[in-house]
Parts: sequence; C-alpha cells; structure tokens
Amino acid sequence: MSKKQQNILIIGAGLSGSLLALRLGQRGYNVTVYEMRSDLRKTDISAGRSINLAFSDRGIKAMKLVGMEDKVKALCIPMNGRMLHDKEGNTYLSNYSGRDHEYINSISRGELNGLLLTEAEKHDNVTIHFNKKCKSVDFENTTALFKDYNTKDEFVEDADCIIATDGAGSALRKSYYLGKKFLFSFSQDYLTHGYKELSILPTESGGYKTYINALHIWPRGDFMLIALPNLDGSFTVTLFLHHNEGEYHFGNLTTPEIVTEFFQKEFPDALELMPNLVDDFFENPTAALGTVKCSPWHYKGNTLLMGDSAHAIVPFYGQGMNASFEDVVEFDKVLDEHEGNWETIFTEYEKTRKKDTDAIADLAIDNFHEMKDHVGQEIFQEKRKIEMALEREFPNEYSSKYSLVTFNEHIGYREAMLRGRAQDKAILNMLADRDISTSDDIKIILDKVKTETEAILEDDKIAGLH
Amino acid sequence: MSKKQQNILIIGAGLSGSLLALRLGQRGYNVTVYEMRSDLRKTDISAGRSINLAFSDRGIKAMKLVGMEDKVKALCIPMNGRMLHDKEGNTYLSNYSGRDHEYINSISRGELNGLLLTEAEKHDNVTIHFNKKCKSVDFENTTALFKDYNTKDEFVEDADCIIATDGAGSALRKSYYLGKKFLFSFSQDYLTHGYKELSILPTESGGYKTYINALHIWPRGDFMLIALPNLDGSFTVTLFLHHNEGEYHFGNLTTPEIVTEFFQKEFPDALELMPNLVDDFFENPTAALGTVKCSPWHYKGNTLLMGDSAHAIVPFYGQGMNASFEDVVEFDKVLDEHEGNWETIFTEYEKTRKKDTDAIADLAIDNFHEMKDHVGQEIFQEKRKIEMALEREFPNEYSSKYSLVTFNEHIGYREAMLRGRAQDKAILNMLADRDISTSDDIKIILDKVKTETEAILEDDKIAGLH
Repeated sequence: MSKKQQNILIIGAGLSGSLLALRLGQRGYNVTVYEMRSDLRKTDISAGRSINLAFSDRGIKAMKLVGMEDKVKALCIPMNGRMLHDKEGNTYLSNYSGRDHEYINSISRGELNGLLLTEAEKHDNVTIHFNKKCKSVDFENTTALFKDYNTKDEFVEDADCIIATDGAGSALRKSYYLGKKFLFSFSQDYLTHGYKELSILPTESGGYKTYINALHIWPRGDFMLIALPNLDGSFTVTLFLHHNEGEYHFGNLTTPEIVTEFFQKEFPDALELMPNLVDDFFENPTAALGTVKCSPWHYKGNTLLMGDSAHAIVPFYGQGMNASFEDVVEFDKVLDEHEGNWETIFTEYEKTRKKDTDAIADLAIDNFHEMKDHVGQEIFQEKRKIEMALEREFPNEYSSKYSLVTFNEHIGYREAMLRGRAQDKAILNMLADRDISTSDDIKIILDKVKTETEAILEDDKIAGLH
Repeated sequence: MSKKQQNILIIGAGLSGSLLALRLGQRGYNVTVYEMRSDLRKTDISAGRSINLAFSDRGIKAMKLVGMEDKVKALCIPMNGRMLHDKEGNTYLSNYSGRDHEYINSISRGELNGLLLTEAEKHDNVTIHFNKKCKSVDFENTTALFKDYNTKDEFVEDADCIIATDGAGSALRKSYYLGKKFLFSFSQDYLTHGYKELSILPTESGGYKTYINALHIWPRGDFMLIALPNLDGSFTVTLFLHHNEGEYHFGNLTTPEIVTEFFQKEFPDALELMPNLVDDFFENPTAALGTVKCSPWHYKGNTLLMGDSAHAIVPFYGQGMNASFEDVVEFDKVLDEHEGNWETIFTEYEKTRKKDTDAIADLAIDNFHEMKDHVGQEIFQEKRKIEMALEREFPNEYSSKYSLVTFNEHIGYREAMLRGRAQDKAILNMLADRDISTSDDIKIILDKVKTETEAILEDDKIAGLH
C-alpha cells in the first residue's frame, strides 16, 4: 500500500497532535484527528491553566521542520533571563546564557495551537473533528471508541495506525494499563506542591506593569511565584505552593484576608501589581503537578503514544511543549529511515527517544528545587556568575546545564543532563573547597571545570552509575 | 475505645499478613484476616513460584519481636556465600562477609508462612478466613468487599481500620488508584527479564547433589541461573532470562531440544544435576519481575498498605521478605509511640519507612546487574577480595554494601545504600586509577577507602544530590 492510502488516526489536537497532523499531512498520509474539546480558534480555552508557555530552541527546530518558524516567531516575547524578586522588592536580572543570542520566549498556548491547526487543515488529506472524546482504544484491532459530545453518540473508528497525543490523561495509555495484554511499565508521580494561575493585568494604556523581557521569579525556599509576559500587556502569574504543609498552603488559603496577608508578607511588590489577586485566586482552580513515564509506548505497529501521553513532565524547565515538539522531529527522522513498516518505526522511535524524555522529566524536577530555593543561595549564585562568564568568554567551549538543555537542540536531553549535572557538581565542589573563586582568572577556571567534569563523568562510569 | 475493642481487618495471610496478625494479636487487638488462597498448611501451594527465600538479619529481628526466633531458625539452611559456576563447570566460593557469623539462610516460604499462621491463631483475638478474595476497598468508609470462593457469595466487612498485606497485586492499592479521591503517586516497572523456577532433586538417599551451604550462581552476563537449598535435599533453581531478546530468550525456548541445547551450552554442570529439566521447564510458568512503589500508603486513619502491596521489589538482594518483616518491626515502634491515633500512626510510619523501602527497591535492581554480570568481571572480583579482607581484619570498622544491607539491621536501607554505593565507587575508582591494589597493606587500604568514601558523600551533598 502506498503511504497516500495509509490512514492515520490521531487522538488529540493539542500542541502535539496538531503539529503531528501537520507533519504527517505534509508527508502525504491520510490523517484524521479527533479532539475532545471544541475548536479553540472559535471558543475561549478553559481559563486558569497554562495560558502561556516557554518556547525555545528544540521547539523552534520543530517549527523549522514544518516551515512555520517565521509565523511562530511573530507570537514570541523574548525572555532574556530570570528577574529575581526578593521580599523587599529588590530585583536582580540573571541571564539564561552568557551568549546574547540565547534566550527563551513566552508564547500563548492558544495562539500557537490555533496556528498549527489552521496550517494542518490546509492539507486536503488532513481532517480534524472536535467535541469527540476518545474513551478507549482496542490496540489489538487498531480501533478507537469515541463519544460525540454534541450528539452523545458513541462510535468506533478504524485506522492503519493510531497515534495518541491526548495528553497526561491519555485514553490509549489507560487502555494499555487496564488491558493487561503485555507488561506495561508505568508511573505517575505527583509533587507535594500544586499550582494556581493568576494575572498581572496591562496598564490602562495597554502597557506592561513590570519588565517585559524576563521570566519573573519570587523564590521563597519552599514555594514561589513566577510571571511570564503576554502580547496584550498582561503577565500570567503562577503560584507554586505546597498542597497541605507549611505556614501557608493551598489547604489554608481559604479567605480573601489570608490570601492578601500571604501575598503582603511574601510578595509585596507583586501584590502591588495585582489588585485583581483575590478574584483570580478564588476563580481559578488549584491544579496538581505530576510526572508520567511509561513503556512500551507502542503496541506492535498498531498504536503509539507521543507527547504528554507518553511523558508528561512538571513545568519547571520550560521544556514540556519543546520536548513534545522534538518528539515529532525525532519521529520524522525515523520515518525517513523506515517508512513502510510501522512496527519498526515505533520500536526504533522509542529506542532513540525514551532515554531523552526520561531525562527531561528528571531535569524538570531538579529545576523545581533550583527555582524555588537554590537561586536564592549564595553558592548557587556564585556558580551562576562563573557560568555566565565562561559562556561569555568562551562561547564555543562552555555551556551550562541550562544552556545544554535549552539552547543545544543538536544534543539529546540525556547527554545534556549527564554533562550538565557533572559540571554543576564540579563547580559547586570547587567553590566549596575554595579551589576556585569568582575572582580567579576565567581561563584557569575553564580548565579546572573541564578537567573536574571529565573526572566526575569517568568516576561515575567506572562505578557503573550511568 | 480501648484497643481491645478495636477491630483490625487484615487483607492477605501471606508472610506479611500472618506476621502482622500475630503481632497485633499479641498487642491485644481484635484481628480478622481474609486470605484469597486456601490454607497452605492443608493444601499444596501453587508450584513453580518462590518456593524458598533468602532470610537474613532484618527478618530475624522481626522474629525476635514476636518470640519466634528459635522456631524459625530450625527451618533455616545457612548459605555462607555465593558459589559461582563458570561455563567449564569450575566453582568459586565467594563469602557474603569477612565475618564468619554473617551469612544468609534459605527457608521454605510455605513452612515459614504456616508457622506464623499457627502462632497467630493461638490468640483468641485473631481469626483467619481462607478462600475469600478482596475485590475492592471503600477507604472512605473503611469497608472491604470480598468474594467467597467456596459459596461464590460477595460480602462487605467493616472495621476500625484496614491493613492490606495482599501483595504486589493489592486490591487496596488498586482502589486508591482507580478511586481518584486524592493524588496517588504510583509506579510499576517491569524488568526486561522474567524468571522460571526449576529444580535439582535430592540424591536417591535424600542427600544434596551439590554443596548445600551456598547460594549457587551461574552468571552469564545478560542472564543467569541460581539455586538455593531446601531441607529435603533438593535445590530450587531459578532461571533469569530476557523475555524476548538475545540468542536465547523465554520467547524462543519452545522445544525440549532448544532448552536442552541452551543448558548444555551455558550451564553444563547444572544440566548434569537436572535430568528433570525439560519437564520442569514446560510445567512451570514464566513469571514477570516488577518493582512497585506508591505514595501515600494510607488514607487518613482508615486504611494502610504494608509489605509487597506498598513496595514490591525484584528478588536480587534476597530482601523482599526481610523488608516486609522489617515493616512490622517499624510499625510496632510507631504503635508504641502513638497508639490510639491511627492517622498519626499511619502518617509517621510512612514518613519513617518509605525512604528505606524505596532504597531497597533500587538496591535490588543494582544487584540484578551485579549478580548476572559484575560478579564475573575482574575489577569487581578485586573489589570483593579487598572488602573481604577489610571485614576480616577490621570487623568493627568496615562493612561492604552487601553487609550494610543484609547484616546491619540497626541501620535503614537508605543509609546502607548511600554509604554502600559511595564505598563501591571509592574502591572501584581507586582500583582503576591504581591508587590501591589487592597486594597493598590492608590498613593503608582501609584508611584510603574511608577517606575517599567520605569525600564522595560530601561531594554529593554539596551538589545537592541526596
């Protein structure tokens, strides 16, 4: 059968599903997409959940693949660094990289998703249906059961293969788990902390109330507030806080007075910008933060999990969307090599990809602790200062863990994690042992960091730790 | 309410459940136990699954708590070390410790379980029902639904609290997962390898066909065979092999000829002792090897997971039963402190215990690679030789990772893991760098190992890795 006659069913038209539909449409497959929500280009998406996202080089790589780079860049607001806010309202800008051309972007989830859907639908061989929820997948017979939210009818769809991009609560993944037809490794891990989205509204003239080109962070040790800019002058603010422990937690922030007291005490400068705090706080839901890993992602050549359905991660590295977009790039490479044999494609794709999505899941949890806590500690600030200088002075020789993960889209997350963690360990220990200091000659620091990093990687290898 | 009026429902009368019933019976609670299988003291347990087990100091600690040490010791066969078998049939005994009084034991699962059931039933306040399977638990109302396998009737039991010791496939854990009433972190991770139990039968006169006081291992890199002695002169043999990859795997060992060829080539000396190989191979099931972790273990003061239901692990450290027995010791300590408040008891128990059961789960996977592969490598053999000498010469100053885990029941698994892994890393790296060699003065080696271990632990701490 030629690929033009191959029917691909995609479950979910979120960021992953719409990009995948577009790419498979470009490649000539017959693509049908079913999405449980209504068309977000025609109705508001549900408020209070991930209104904007961090978009960076791995995501851009995927946009280049589908020829959408320029259209997407028009939606981007560059964020050059973290703007740290202390309790007194003092601010410190800490760049993401010592190289000026390396920065991340704030982008609207809804706008980007809409753009991809529209581009996918330009292909005659791509059809997208909304308001149709997948209830389960019969992975042995390659069919999926849907419920139409409008008519309330249930119906079954058949395909040559089914790819589920239906997010952290994936129906296909649930069918794998409940089906018990093969050994399915699976984990869902919740953080002790949840989150709630709030907002800083634009000024009356539509301007920004605080500095636009940064990701703002109010780190407070065991909790934090962050803010990302939107094109309309507003910022989407997110509070990350323990569900039920500590002096203040989501469980006891139950009245306008307590919420205001908490912000007055911990985030006074943010509170000044948020007269709408109390309304936002009680209107928006408190949501959980979880990591999902599983294996295998595929059943024979019939079905495959991609994006969050295969590897949902916590948001602290700003890599959730970027990782899912990179999935499509990696999948496309495997298609180039093995087109025509879905079982080989799915097997090879998981073999090359899973180690990297496992790594970014772990890195994202590392960064939770870094953002809420470490960024406020002196030794981490000294490390950051040294790394900025290394990147500035030796742009071709040094990249921090953050840069390896975020701006080095040519290496995988796992390699970035191993090298990045070893570098962090080398610098922190040499600082603690006074083998290096921020006033040393930068070339000498570079050589010491390189030598010590290699030694750490080698020691771990000998001990069988990788 | 006095504790004598408190009704405790225990789901599952396996090793965990029978020990827990005995201990809570000794403490004066009204204990009712429901077990899905029939009474193993009256009928044969299902063949081919974990006939014998490794029993060591953490398990002995629990037997002391309930006054059963002497009765249980009568069932034990000491195993002083690993007897390694190479492909040519040469054998090497590698002791588990440099201290003569440190060894593990082989014990019959069925005999031990029967002994605990009989002891528990001596208490008027303990009742055990068989052939009654738990189908689900209503953890908000502290009731459990059972099905009677004899009458086919379903019935609901109420209690003041319910403790599930119903193993890796726990009904309570499933109810937590499916109930979606709280954030339940959960993982099931399968190894690529499965296992099958085989046997070496006794000699005609009832003697042992190979050395009795060892755990026999035939390490072959990617797979292995092991054997543990039984009191009747037989050995229970277990083949650990990949499910579907490699030259030989469970998927292609489908005929008597191929099975015999595989053993002839890889385990010729074992095959000589196993004329019954082919019959065993095709009669006994191939089983999966999985790790289960989850959290929280309890719901308020209503329900609690203990033993394998909370933390199923792979068998390679010989600690599965020992960890579950230690659960009861730790639970008993928390009862001493907080008796009367189940919610506090369950919360404190999980807080102190989970870090250790997570650690033994990870250690057990480490040991899978060590047993099938590392034990055959020269650098690991040199490490082992050095550690034996350290334990022999400095019995109060040095314990290997294996000894810390197995023979140091006064420290937790997590502490044993962190220190043991750091020691391993120190010795392997000093051997690789020729900082130490097996011919060095042993006191000098001890000092170097201690210094380097502390440095590794300190470096990890500074880097925030623990």
